Amino acid sequence: MTDPLRLGIAGLGTVGTGVVKIVQTHADMLAARTGRPVTISAVSARSRNKDRGVDLSGYAWEDDPVALAGRDDVDVLVELMGGTDGPARAATRAAIARGKHVVTANKAMLAVHGQGLAEEAEAAGVALRFEAAVAGGIPVVKALSESLSANRITRVMGVMNGTCNYILTRMEASGLPYGKVFKEAADLGYLEADPQLDVGGIDAGHKLALLASIAFGTQVDFDNVHLEGIDRITIEDITRAGDMGYRIKLLGVAQMSEARGLEQRMTPCLVPRKSPLGQLRNATNMVVIDGDSCGQIVLRGAGAGEGPTASAVMADVLDIARGLILPVFGQPARTLKAVPPAAASAPAAWYLRLSLLDKPGALARIATVLGDEGLSIDRMRQYGRHGEAAPVLIVTHKGTRDALDHAMAKFDATGVLSAAPVAIRIEEV
Amino acid sequence: MTDPLRLGIAGLGTVGTGVVKIVQTHADMLAARTGRPVTISAVSARSRNKDRGVDLSGYAWEDDPVALAGRDDVDVLVELMGGTDGPARAATRAAIARGKHVVTANKAMLAVHGQGLAEEAEAAGVALRFEAAVAGGIPVVKALSESLSANRITRVMGVMNGTCNYILTRMEASGLPYGKVFKEAADLGYLEADPQLDVGGIDAGHKLALLASIAFGTQVDFDNVHLEGIDRITIEDITRAGDMGYRIKLLGVAQMSEARGLEQRMTPCLVPRKSPLGQLRNATNMVVIDGDSCGQIVLRGAGAGEGPTASAVMADVLDIARGLILPVFGQPARTLKAVPPAAASAPAAWYLRLSLLDKPGALARIATVLGDEGLSIDRMRQYGRHGEAAPVLIVTHKGTRDALDHAMAKFDATGVLSAAPVAIRIEEV
Repeated sequence: MTDPLRLGIAGLGTVGTGVVKIVQTHADMLAARTGRPVTISAVSARSRNKDRGVDLSGYAWEDDPVALAGRDDVDVLVELMGGTDGPARAATRAAIARGKHVVTANKAMLAVHGQGLAEEAEAAGVALRFEAAVAGGIPVVKALSESLSANRITRVMGVMNGTCNYILTRMEASGLPYGKVFKEAADLGYLEADPQLDVGGIDAGHKLALLASIAFGTQVDFDNVHLEGIDRITIEDITRAGDMGYRIKLLGVAQMSEARGLEQRMTPCLVPRKSPLGQLRNATNMVVIDGDSCGQIVLRGAGAGEGPTASAVMADVLDIARGLILPVFGQPARTLKAVPPAAASAPAAWYLRLSLLDKPGALARIATVLGDEGLSIDRMRQYGRHGEAAPVLIVTHKGTRDALDHAMAKFDATGVLSAAPVAIRIEEV
Repeated sequence: MTDPLRLGIAGLGTVGTGVVKIVQTHADMLAARTGRPVTISAVSARSRNKDRGVDLSGYAWEDDPVALAGRDDVDVLVELMGGTDGPARAATRAAIARGKHVVTANKAMLAVHGQGLAEEAEAAGVALRFEAAVAGGIPVVKALSESLSANRITRVMGVMNGTCNYILTRMEASGLPYGKVFKEAADLGYLEADPQLDVGGIDAGHKLALLASIAFGTQVDFDNVHLEGIDRITIEDITRAGDMGYRIKLLGVAQMSEARGLEQRMTPCLVPRKSPLGQLRNATNMVVIDGDSCGQIVLRGAGAGEGPTASAVMADVLDIARGLILPVFGQPARTLKAVPPAAASAPAAWYLRLSLLDKPGALARIATVLGDEGLSIDRMRQYGRHGEAAPVLIVTHKGTRDALDHAMAKFDATGVLSAAPVAIRIEEV
């Protein structure tokens, strides 16, 4: 194995440039670790003349990423263009069809077309790897598909969108409302061109769907990820949740049971402030994996950025250089199960924030509604009146989302609330 | 690849029993994930008739682990006996000589004989894997040798002995002194037969030496791990360090620079209370890896116990079943460098606790000594007098261990201290 492994890099944004830098600065180290040189044959990007701060003069240039993928001197297509379809998918399919390996950071493409691409790659006997697509530099794809593969995974969860976690952290620290902090983040360039990809949970939902596939041996099913964004989170909830010992996170959770099916949620949740997830500040990512033998494994690191993402891309490249080639989602794609989505989410404790009017028996009526729906109260806190109403916080014992929805629907009829109630799931960590 | 992968398990303690349970309960899942059945052919242990709560009737019994290793129906020796030499090493060498793979949880054997065994295994073309030897269920060996292998690793550190972390956590929570908590831990069965392996840092030092080899491409060099145990840690230091925003951990740190050589320390250190390491309670382990591209990656999980350790053993077995075989320490053993140990540890901030006599100019004399040695004071706190002396806490700016040692030696001559000063390194995290 002394033949070089020759890369064709499609996409020279931040991550592509980072990959070029690693190949250039660490050539000797990479060769020592894999037993063969890792080289770049050709590159492709939208603009040829942009100064990217790296020397590309030694590499062939292709305007068309599909042509890049088909070059005889390319062994691995490194796809860093992004996008569900278009050039990314066309180049990926072209590479596979020509018997070349593919390494990609493209969560959107795999979340939508992962099953088909995996079947094509496995039929062609090539690798299709995507460590960089989930949680940046954190090696979670490998952890799930290799390190923890003797475990029945019971739950995968995580904070996998750094921008959302930054916004929530900043709201708590500054006391500024969501809209102001969103604006700040936009001005800092932290948001995708379509910000809903971030704050709507779509980007993180893509990642969760990929992890769920590996964890449970199921076909990627992004359509059934229940998505709720962070735009409805108020400063008041951040503060009140803090009073009760929690922090609000945009948390992805995937769990599967034979009885209930596959549950995938990317929604704001409360987690204990003192838990690893609760301690996670700013743009850092964290993935928490529960397995029947390993117990709980927590992985933490940078979820984005040039270096961390390029590190993950290169991890996949080096595995290919070393001949470590697995099925795309850990087990052969044709054996991945199509599992029905869970009809209901797992029972949880709930945080409720109510604005209670100053009427006799008001709290009793609320408690009665909850009790009628089988939701018992774990903790309750009433604050002094603001205007005509008093904020009341309730943490329930575990109950179903159905029970909660029924209770929420009945609250209106009690006539004791001055505003719509807020309910947020409390995830057990 | 539909031939079964056949295991011979030497050692049926907690971990061995855990491995048997996984193979028995998850047979279908393991076959689905690796594409072939994983079976057990034979087992070996000291006592044949002990009830281990698992059915061993389907497996051949060998009294002699070397005979087990040589059986024709064994493809992989799973070595779970422990011990630097003796049967563990004999069986490992026998397996390698017969062209069989070895999976072991034996940190002591590898810390001492790792280089030789790796050379033998690689010459024979077999795998010698040890994920379970370091930090139990945390997949740190794979993270370093594969996931982060495109990084120049700048530092590996971690809390890798759960018993020590339990003792320190319990001291802080209970206010009980070291001796009492040590006794408790012994009564609970948390300590090795030779407790110095735990509280003296030896066990954790073995683990650090293995990680350093992978991280830096160097030969395992346990002899040059600087070891300090936790037995000198007092309640007073735990409390005072807390006042200054720190927690005391038995922390392993490995770092290498061309200029200074390889530095390996397993010593009590202060870390910020709010950092992931500072938040780590009880027997949980944590490894923190800094790389030039990935930034800081934190891995957290159970460092011991039946399930977590068996999970790690099986991860190695499944890699072998899938044909994923790497050099033992990530790159060929014959290319690992023999690096001189660092002559001095990296500069650090230091925590000093002094008992200052009530004499005019006492503090000035201490400050002068520190200043003369080039150690400047970052923060200082003086408490009210206890008897004739007042406790004084000092946090210095970064300085060398040499400067600190010189200052400590001069303190005595000042005549203003009522007791020996205490100094503990503050590790930047």
